[in-house]
Amino acid sequence: MDQPHLSSPGLDAASAQPAAEALRLKWLGIDTSQEAVIYMRRDCPVCRSEGFQAQSRVRVELAGREIISTLNVIDSELLSHGEASLSVAGWRALKAREGSTIRVYPAPLVESVRTLRAKIYGHRFDRPGLRAILEDVSQGRYSDIFLSAFITACAGDRLDIRETTWLTEAMAQCGEQLDWGQGPIADKHCVGGLPGNRTTLIVTPIIACAGLRMPKTSSRAITSPAGTADTMETLAPVALELPAMRRVVEREGACIVWGGAVALSPADDVLIRVERPLDLDSEAQLVASVISKKIAAGSTHVLIDIPIGATAKVRSAQAAQSLQFALEHVAAAMGIALKVLPTDGSQPVGRGIGPALEARDVLSVLRGSLDAPSDLRERALDLAGALLEFCGAAGGGEGRLRAQRILASGEALKKFVAICEAQGGFREPVAGSCLYHAVAPKKGRVTALDNRRLARLAKLAGAPQAAGAGIDLHVRCGDVVEHGQPLFTLHADHPGELNYARLYLEKQADIIVVAPI
Amino acid sequence: MDQPHLSSPGLDAASAQPAAEALRLKWLGIDTSQEAVIYMRRDCPVCRSEGFQAQSRVRVELAGREIISTLNVIDSELLSHGEASLSVAGWRALKAREGSTIRVYPAPLVESVRTLRAKIYGHRFDRPGLRAILEDVSQGRYSDIFLSAFITACAGDRLDIRETTWLTEAMAQCGEQLDWGQGPIADKHCVGGLPGNRTTLIVTPIIACAGLRMPKTSSRAITSPAGTADTMETLAPVALELPAMRRVVEREGACIVWGGAVALSPADDVLIRVERPLDLDSEAQLVASVISKKIAAGSTHVLIDIPIGATAKVRSAQAAQSLQFALEHVAAAMGIALKVLPTDGSQPVGRGIGPALEARDVLSVLRGSLDAPSDLRERALDLAGALLEFCGAAGGGEGRLRAQRILASGEALKKFVAICEAQGGFREPVAGSCLYHAVAPKKGRVTALDNRRLARLAKLAGAPQAAGAGIDLHVRCGDVVEHGQPLFTLHADHPGELNYARLYLEKQADIIVVAPI
Repeated sequence: MDQPHLSSPGLDAASAQPAAEALRLKWLGIDTSQEAVIYMRRDCPVCRSEGFQAQSRVRVELAGREIISTLNVIDSELLSHGEASLSVAGWRALKAREGSTIRVYPAPLVESVRTLRAKIYGHRFDRPGLRAILEDVSQGRYSDIFLSAFITACAGDRLDIRETTWLTEAMAQCGEQLDWGQGPIADKHCVGGLPGNRTTLIVTPIIACAGLRMPKTSSRAITSPAGTADTMETLAPVALELPAMRRVVEREGACIVWGGAVALSPADDVLIRVERPLDLDSEAQLVASVISKKIAAGSTHVLIDIPIGATAKVRSAQAAQSLQFALEHVAAAMGIALKVLPTDGSQPVGRGIGPALEARDVLSVLRGSLDAPSDLRERALDLAGALLEFCGAAGGGEGRLRAQRILASGEALKKFVAICEAQGGFREPVAGSCLYHAVAPKKGRVTALDNRRLARLAKLAGAPQAAGAGIDLHVRCGDVVEHGQPLFTLHADHPGELNYARLYLEKQADIIVVAPI
Repeated sequence: MDQPHLSSPGLDAASAQPAAEALRLKWLGIDTSQEAVIYMRRDCPVCRSEGFQAQSRVRVELAGREIISTLNVIDSELLSHGEASLSVAGWRALKAREGSTIRVYPAPLVESVRTLRAKIYGHRFDRPGLRAILEDVSQGRYSDIFLSAFITACAGDRLDIRETTWLTEAMAQCGEQLDWGQGPIADKHCVGGLPGNRTTLIVTPIIACAGLRMPKTSSRAITSPAGTADTMETLAPVALELPAMRRVVEREGACIVWGGAVALSPADDVLIRVERPLDLDSEAQLVASVISKKIAAGSTHVLIDIPIGATAKVRSAQAAQSLQFALEHVAAAMGIALKVLPTDGSQPVGRGIGPALEARDVLSVLRGSLDAPSDLRERALDLAGALLEFCGAAGGGEGRLRAQRILASGEALKKFVAICEAQGGFREPVAGSCLYHAVAPKKGRVTALDNRRLARLAKLAGAPQAAGAGIDLHVRCGDVVEHGQPLFTLHADHPGELNYARLYLEKQADIIVVAPI
């Protein structure tokens, strides 16, 4: 096991990494979303001496900060000699300015990729292997191709319960971890797949009114037309950094902020960027994503809402049990008290699907409006009641009644508005103004609503990026409709998106089934 | 199963896809390798009306041609109002010119992605499903993220023999299929993993000298430091289009060209772009890639060289048998005569690793030089002999002798040079001029050479993109070396790459093992 001798005339190991020539940054303003791209001239000495080509992965240094970027090569006079540029994401990450000096090196080999390959070939992950992968992911060392391979390798049921636990732990270790002092710290989470199920915005103020603390961090949509953070953002700012979030919780006992801004699980935020277009479900990723964020958020008592329905994310009681087992097992291993509440997931909750339309439903429940969607109110009260009991703020069987009183008294509304004000100011949500009305083709009874295809339709109309886009449902299962009666209204911010959604809708004959009576 | 009625005042289904506003193309010269990227201003009316954002997938039309591209949004004055630009790859694909008029639409939903997701969740592919995926892949409708997911979903042993057969068929159906009239049409292929095993350049002229036709299409390197096409390119042009390839074969009976240029398996060429960085082996992908290209190339008799060795691609006789079974089964299903020849894969073949250095070895064998690497010559003669017998150009047991005579007579050299001239002109290969000598740290016997790490070292030195880069081995297994005796010389075209390779080498104590005697 001897090493080839490395000395050679005129070269020594210490000089192996030469100081790269410096390049001046020029602003080109190319937005590649979150991907860091560097632009360099083909005849740039750094490109030539390092043998860089288009799509090479490189390490860029600026004043002690560094990022890994993908190289795009410039074959024009866009850049002068000695100049380079960065995509908007790279520019921000390095806090660059026009004229800043950067140095560019070959990206280091990402050793954890070997562990990923072994997994793809059928081996199991071990604990240090997953730790190394998630560290590299959170540091931006994985290109989209490798992120996609990792997500695919973990999809379906490819991680066992031990791998899921290590994945959870590794994801929690990558970012900040909050400490709120003495507990209990209440939290809730819905595994999703049910459009409009925006109970968090009702449960959180109820819990805070009962004197418990609930520093809620929510995510933006991954594959759905709205995440809780997207919906909340139509009512108040959600991109609070950690000190601001702490001030809100100290003042109001609760907050509803976007987890991405407080960097609680940076690896998860990176993975989501690739998970979103892939649209892959994975029990392990779901468990790791949920519980790692709860660990990082400092939660001690977590209630999980699992909607079950033929077109929800969890389709059967059996799948729910499997997920419940994984959640409980991993939570226990991580020292968190976790309770699962299976719920009805047969049709969307409330009437709106999409950030602003869902926010409107939430407000009508909090305000006690006569036309507030009762299904959303009842689900929120069930969850708030269970969470009050779980945290010891209500006796067995008494939680729901306490929650109901807090809501009916107007205290919950007052608290919600106070939270919004503390986060930067309450505002009314605005629905998109480009409309299309889908009507019943004949008289009959509504027998089914397809959650998945309604969600896709809302996304095609622009949700969640266009906050006003989505669907306003006018019927529920069991309703009798006349010929020509509106079934739902599509909302979009732009005519192009409205038309794009309609093109999809044309082929979805049974997105809402109207059966002869 | 009734469809919501789609008529609505002021909107009808026929107007659902409006004519997009036209944009003028401006050349920016941004090389993104093979990825098609479109650059549009953020305030461009098309972006706004369609709700496009950075990384949106869009369909770009120019004079009846169309491509799917990824959007980068411009936040500067790089583009004027009414202007857009394309990456070099997109510009070429659309045959664009400065000032050309394009129209941009949302990319259609890629329906075959559903089939891919089902596979990732553990279902099997069916025949039409794979056909649809490969069609979409070859048409550029899959982004890198989806290509990576597809490759990962097929990696290891995740495709059974039926899926492998359908994958092969689907890949062959995507591109051109050559017809050479009456057979036999000889072909050979090495499954790779053995650096320097460049027998094709010796076997092909021998076969042609025996009066058989051998229109050889080879690939560039996927994960190795040189593919046969890369090595051949240092000796003659290889990027011939179909008519030119036909003329060479009509004149000389054989050719050695790059398969990518004749578009024999366009889906494979797209997949390779993502397989290369992922560096994943997959029996199914390998079988499909090899046999689909043989089908497309019109080959009737195919000899497969499977080198077996601890650090070769195929590590054991058992793995070789599994691969042999898959190759034979799929070939039979596709109507091709296929024979497998397992060979020794314990160490690199010849002395050079990297395009130019391997080409130098090939020339020395063809020229009958006294110092020609005997292992390369013997392997080439074994393969040529077996192929002559397989195609009926030699009796049982007589093939090797015939091959040997053709080589020794100088006929094979003459034929090889004639093929090179017909392809555009013979040239001498040039090795990289930046050198580093690795020497034995002490006296001892060489007991092992690590194929994989030597290959990686050659790649870090710049191979195959830098054709002169690579490794020149001075020792073989069993050699006794003195302290300070050169073990190998690293070649690079640029000092940066040489140093990068050396940084890696420093950590590879046992890349060549020198044991005490």
